[in-house]
Amino acid sequence: MVYEATVSAPVNIAVIKYWGKRNTKLILPTNSSLSVTLSQNHLASTTTSQADASFDGADRLWLNGKEEEVKEGGRLWVCIKELRGFRAELEAQDSSLPKLSTFPLRIASRNNFPTAAGLASSASGLAALVASLSTLYALPQSPSELSRIARQGSGSACRSLFGGFVAWREGTAADGSDSLAEEVAPQSHWPEMQALICVVSDKKKGTSSTSGMQRTVETSPLLQERLRIVPGRMEAIEKAIQERDFSTFAKITMIDSNQFHAVCLDTCPPIFYLNDVSRSIIALVEELNRAAGEPIAAYTFDAGPNAVIYALEKNMPKIIKAVQQFFPTEEDFNDRLAVSAKVSEAALPEGFQEVIPKWEKGAVKSLIHTNVGDGPRKLDSAKGLLKEDGTPKELA
Amino acid sequence: MVYEATVSAPVNIAVIKYWGKRNTKLILPTNSSLSVTLSQNHLASTTTSQADASFDGADRLWLNGKEEEVKEGGRLWVCIKELRGFRAELEAQDSSLPKLSTFPLRIASRNNFPTAAGLASSASGLAALVASLSTLYALPQSPSELSRIARQGSGSACRSLFGGFVAWREGTAADGSDSLAEEVAPQSHWPEMQALICVVSDKKKGTSSTSGMQRTVETSPLLQERLRIVPGRMEAIEKAIQERDFSTFAKITMIDSNQFHAVCLDTCPPIFYLNDVSRSIIALVEELNRAAGEPIAAYTFDAGPNAVIYALEKNMPKIIKAVQQFFPTEEDFNDRLAVSAKVSEAALPEGFQEVIPKWEKGAVKSLIHTNVGDGPRKLDSAKGLLKEDGTPKELA
Repeated sequence: MVYEATVSAPVNIAVIKYWGKRNTKLILPTNSSLSVTLSQNHLASTTTSQADASFDGADRLWLNGKEEEVKEGGRLWVCIKELRGFRAELEAQDSSLPKLSTFPLRIASRNNFPTAAGLASSASGLAALVASLSTLYALPQSPSELSRIARQGSGSACRSLFGGFVAWREGTAADGSDSLAEEVAPQSHWPEMQALICVVSDKKKGTSSTSGMQRTVETSPLLQERLRIVPGRMEAIEKAIQERDFSTFAKITMIDSNQFHAVCLDTCPPIFYLNDVSRSIIALVEELNRAAGEPIAAYTFDAGPNAVIYALEKNMPKIIKAVQQFFPTEEDFNDRLAVSAKVSEAALPEGFQEVIPKWEKGAVKSLIHTNVGDGPRKLDSAKGLLKEDGTPKELA
Repeated sequence: MVYEATVSAPVNIAVIKYWGKRNTKLILPTNSSLSVTLSQNHLASTTTSQADASFDGADRLWLNGKEEEVKEGGRLWVCIKELRGFRAELEAQDSSLPKLSTFPLRIASRNNFPTAAGLASSASGLAALVASLSTLYALPQSPSELSRIARQGSGSACRSLFGGFVAWREGTAADGSDSLAEEVAPQSHWPEMQALICVVSDKKKGTSSTSGMQRTVETSPLLQERLRIVPGRMEAIEKAIQERDFSTFAKITMIDSNQFHAVCLDTCPPIFYLNDVSRSIIALVEELNRAAGEPIAAYTFDAGPNAVIYALEKNMPKIIKAVQQFFPTEEDFNDRLAVSAKVSEAALPEGFQEVIPKWEKGAVKSLIHTNVGDGPRKLDSAKGLLKEDGTPKELA
């Protein structure tokens, strides 16, 4: 008999950035971080896990249809081992439970967004893996307890185990037992929060975040000052979220993104993720905010040139309008939240000045308009990614 | 009778950057800085000063042929006032001296390099102004004492009063009396030091350094850490210069340039001077150094996208070759130091990898190859920029 669970998990985009590990094996960060979970209606990773006593040999895993080796001691292996251990504890306490912990696993995971979008898929992917195994094994562990496992798979994955606004507390314990994610506020607290992802073309292959952040830890003298600054920012942005104070939220989001890229530049050799298009998006948002007399949009950039612009629902149409005006996209706008009519009617803030050039078509490839979302979702078996025999379904 | 002096002064390019004033009126910096003086054979500002009792009315001044107002309380006015004051002291001590301090002035200044080159001309221009008035007035003040005056005209101008390797000591006195430039080593100490200026095109008008640096002082938390770091870097790079240790000189030059741009990015709103071409030049130099097994070139960037690459004479041909290969220039190479034959023969370091794309022609407009130079030069009256009547000569 095949036991099976299918779960989806969301993408999260940090507003207080994670950059640097104090322990690379356990993935313990040098500072706490905070993110907004984006809606799984638009961006999600889905994972199906199966356990069956009749499966042959070792565990097997497919990512986006391609089999990946589960290397002993590797990050995926660690996550599976820990969750299997939790299951074994349950089975030891209740002998009536099927011995799933002893069965080989088959795992398939897919993203519903193209890798080419340049969004870090490891966070949602690892979170979906952990959540699906936890469901398969019927584990009693809370999302925070599970986040400790997901963290060891991919640091920021721990934040994708919650919806809404999520903090990853750096913790102090040497074994990482208190380095966990927790909900700061649920999606329902501030549903007006939306995001516009500007997918930016880049010729240059960037530095991977895993190697880049450790180079920063080893060589950037300015990082030490950043580590003294982040706790105050965490407190301030959590308060802003609690009070739905977009202006403060936006200011902190932007200065923290800029500071993250500043310590990248202070790294030896320097790391650059922002390109000329990214710089122009920053200039556009700064000018929109200046003309509006208050922050109505907040940019943030991860380890790549893509911008994520946070804004409240009421202001998003004019922001989309401005972005489309200066960065005509290659792809037609996929109007996931049905705002096209409002975008047409929207006017840029009075006094807005054209401080940036109009870019050639395709400098921004596409726009993804989405909103704040919920945490991992259990899906119907009909949505499963594996066949009864434990091999991936062919996708149409 | 017209009294006249004509002096030229050099461009200097900092390797420890000046960014931030603790006193904006007196131009007192938040940190000491250090620069290399470039040869006046290739880049210089020339100033002619005249004093004549028969000149009408107020002082008049022409910059590159265009008359500029000498505003009371302005920076030019302060420099002229201070130097005139020194002259008045001399005249008070020796009544046989002509009373030049009471005569109206006529001043004309020109750069022998186009403004379009994007090189800060204010440093060499102010230094030439101060040196020419000092010569006209036959002042006994030393270059360091004069640097205190030039500093008030344009901060980094104080460093253009010396040749070779020059430190601007931040000083501690509230009145700025000890915020002076001094020679760390003369041109003759390390004549193998050369510079390659890569003039980079940029669509975007950058933030002026005067306003940009104060925004950094007011808003960048990371600047505070930089101010704790700079004294150690000053000491280390001065030692490297004394010991002609290019490797250390290069490492410090590059990390300090990167850190300066990092605090610009940590400013609110952020300041960007590096563009995608600048980033590529950095990547090219880092790869040349990696392949060579030691730093053979050091990039540094001021408040704009232009790169200045320092290298020793023996390594410059291969560096020019590499730059020309990836950044074909709009203008033909003006071979000021007669290295073309050596560039043709030069080979890139073994193991060099093509980590950057080849740019379209003109991404780098031109290259200026020069070397370390001397301090201000007194020029023949034949080189004067003013006619007997105190108006600028027409230039061919």
